Amino acid sequence: MLFGLAIIRAKQHENQIIKGRNLTMAILQIGAGGVGWVIAHKAAQNNDVLGDITIASRTVSKCESIIESIKKMENMKDPSKKLEARAVNADDVDALVALIKEVQPDLVINAGPPWVNMTIMEACYQAKVSYLDTSVAVDLCSEGQQVPQAYDWQWGYREKFKEAGITGILGAGFDPGVVSVFAAYAVKHLFDEIDTIDVMDVNAGDHGKKFATNFDPETNMLEIQGDSFYWEEGEWKQVPCHTRMMEFDFPLVGSHKVYSMAHDEVRSMKEFIPAKRIEFWMGFGDRYLNYFNCMRDIGLLSPDPVTLQDGTVVEPLKVLKALLPDPTSLAPGYTGKTCIGTWVQGKKDGKERSVFIYNNADHQVAYKDVEHQAISYTTGVPAITAALQYFRGKWAEAGVYNMEQLDPDPFLETMPEIGLDWHVQELEVGQPAINILK
Amino acid sequence: MLFGLAIIRAKQHENQIIKGRNLTMAILQIGAGGVGWVIAHKAAQNNDVLGDITIASRTVSKCESIIESIKKMENMKDPSKKLEARAVNADDVDALVALIKEVQPDLVINAGPPWVNMTIMEACYQAKVSYLDTSVAVDLCSEGQQVPQAYDWQWGYREKFKEAGITGILGAGFDPGVVSVFAAYAVKHLFDEIDTIDVMDVNAGDHGKKFATNFDPETNMLEIQGDSFYWEEGEWKQVPCHTRMMEFDFPLVGSHKVYSMAHDEVRSMKEFIPAKRIEFWMGFGDRYLNYFNCMRDIGLLSPDPVTLQDGTVVEPLKVLKALLPDPTSLAPGYTGKTCIGTWVQGKKDGKERSVFIYNNADHQVAYKDVEHQAISYTTGVPAITAALQYFRGKWAEAGVYNMEQLDPDPFLETMPEIGLDWHVQELEVGQPAINILK
Repeated sequence: MLFGLAIIRAKQHENQIIKGRNLTMAILQIGAGGVGWVIAHKAAQNNDVLGDITIASRTVSKCESIIESIKKMENMKDPSKKLEARAVNADDVDALVALIKEVQPDLVINAGPPWVNMTIMEACYQAKVSYLDTSVAVDLCSEGQQVPQAYDWQWGYREKFKEAGITGILGAGFDPGVVSVFAAYAVKHLFDEIDTIDVMDVNAGDHGKKFATNFDPETNMLEIQGDSFYWEEGEWKQVPCHTRMMEFDFPLVGSHKVYSMAHDEVRSMKEFIPAKRIEFWMGFGDRYLNYFNCMRDIGLLSPDPVTLQDGTVVEPLKVLKALLPDPTSLAPGYTGKTCIGTWVQGKKDGKERSVFIYNNADHQVAYKDVEHQAISYTTGVPAITAALQYFRGKWAEAGVYNMEQLDPDPFLETMPEIGLDWHVQELEVGQPAINILK
Repeated sequence: MLFGLAIIRAKQHENQIIKGRNLTMAILQIGAGGVGWVIAHKAAQNNDVLGDITIASRTVSKCESIIESIKKMENMKDPSKKLEARAVNADDVDALVALIKEVQPDLVINAGPPWVNMTIMEACYQAKVSYLDTSVAVDLCSEGQQVPQAYDWQWGYREKFKEAGITGILGAGFDPGVVSVFAAYAVKHLFDEIDTIDVMDVNAGDHGKKFATNFDPETNMLEIQGDSFYWEEGEWKQVPCHTRMMEFDFPLVGSHKVYSMAHDEVRSMKEFIPAKRIEFWMGFGDRYLNYFNCMRDIGLLSPDPVTLQDGTVVEPLKVLKALLPDPTSLAPGYTGKTCIGTWVQGKKDGKERSVFIYNNADHQVAYKDVEHQAISYTTGVPAITAALQYFRGKWAEAGVYNMEQLDPDPFLETMPEIGLDWHVQELEVGQPAINILK
């Protein structure tokens, strides 16, 4: 495993001075959805380090709403720093380059949907500014964009970023993100040899709606209907969604059914951590799955256009998106907790060991801090935790890095201060009882 | 109860001769959906009485497909009679009047959706031609269009039809339709006093799809999500859909859960047959209701427009319609039977009596006869059975009539010849065990 070398930020400061700017740091955030909401609040709470903040989105009013919330909540640590909104089309590389040149940030934080990763990375490369995102640049359920190919396009920028002297930090949310840092921590401190890695994710919260998704319904529904891919005995295994299930007893939130699912970090863990099996598991309640199956059976989860009797052409999934509650609207009434973690089994000092490294996040605590729910909170807090490592020169080497590649210690030391604590639980040794469903 | 007086058809023949036509009879059918398909086949099988057949629809190709099927199945009893297709907009009274004047039918059979009843009745009145339909001119689930108001608009034509010397026969399908004839038969032959009337309808067939509707999804989904209305102790009772349930042991198809539902004939029975309780019950499998509830919960059953992210405005129910299989497409693979009947309880010769008068229809038998499934078949066969009563002068009095008002005997004598038999089953006396669900 390769851990990033700490490069002194002074080098970059020099650059700024050469460019004729003063020493005030700055970030440019692109994206103003739920995750963007939390990232902006957390950036503001840490603007003594991150500096001026510019939030850009296709819909500038969404940026303005976030700024309004930050000001209302008095979440700007240093109120003298700038906090501004801009409109930008994240599909347009030239527009992005122009905006980056205008804002002159030290880091671009991509808080948009994963399909804008490539344009933003290219713009960062052209403008010579470092880059950070929270999920992978493929949709994980279309042919050629699945887990075994995840990160291929973004890893194509490794040499370019190195040569440009800029840093790219990929997948810096919770999962992907912190769960990989947990795995790196296990490798560094807890194990001599890794046998299996199971990423476990359950939201035991209640939003009070009959059915709703916690983030963009379109992304969510595409993600969970794709085949699952897991890495086992040196090869990729592909299975239909919701056909591998186990029950897992999560700290604080109890036992939940979790299902094997396609997720970004299985690819990057496989790349950087040798293990016999690596798999991602997400909790779905029976009620949720019933809605999901009904919607899938009638064709409502399809992105393929259908023609209505009057000739109107629509994508069913976009109709569903219009019908479901805006995920942002769920936050005020959301109660309960999430639990996400990395279950690692292997050997230490010649003995079998089984460890669960995890966080519990509380929807109401998140809301009191940043006026949003815990799903977005668990993605936004790690992004700013990672950004701080970059600004402190801990994760600032030139090149493109996934979270497994970087030193977990400074990150895990910082994360609780930003809003998410973490724990290590020793479990009884033994492989999970996986149920194969038809 | 008023039974229609037999008026000799010779009177009408005279009219035709005066108008300069020969004695060949003719019908004009408007509508070319599933029910129209069966009506046209059955009309062709009886064209020695009904004469020339013209099928008209907004989409003329649908009429042509029906004609092609009739010819392929060799279903024209007298191949020398005409069988033609026409295009017409059934919302346009002037266009309808023009078509009626061109075709010069003895009877217009409305096989369209219920919302064109009023324009077709008005056109028949203006053109002075008799009229027959198979369901009520309101949607049964919008304010002011529910069971207590059902037929009000159409009954407004009673005097006009009388004065014009033309006949209107309303609701001449199975339910509404035959179930009311069964009730009239019970009044005439089986009971001195009626206590309760429960119309029971179950489709125990299997179309092999995960979810599909047996007729137009839009009409179907609107119908079954409306409040149920039943008549009890001299007043209307209104309850949310699927909250009154009982189990009923149907002949041949066994025990099924049935739910109180809004249906046309509860209004007309209440008007013409004194009873303590009159109620309609439809069978829904748990699986069907689960799909229904999911779709309703996410808002997919709403006719109210929603705006997609790209600005497209769509009615969710019309999107569902585009997603679900075309009901016509289900027919070839449909297996199993329906059972629809009228369960009457009351007194005869001073003793309590409980009787179920019913039909079983078989999807495959229907398909072999007319290339369609039994749901459409049970609606189309009664329409032609009723048309034959009109042509034979049995149900031909001037005015507007529901099926309860007309003599059941000639109708029930004819119906088995047209394709649907019927039976009377004595049941144990006793009120049903109705479950109130929340």
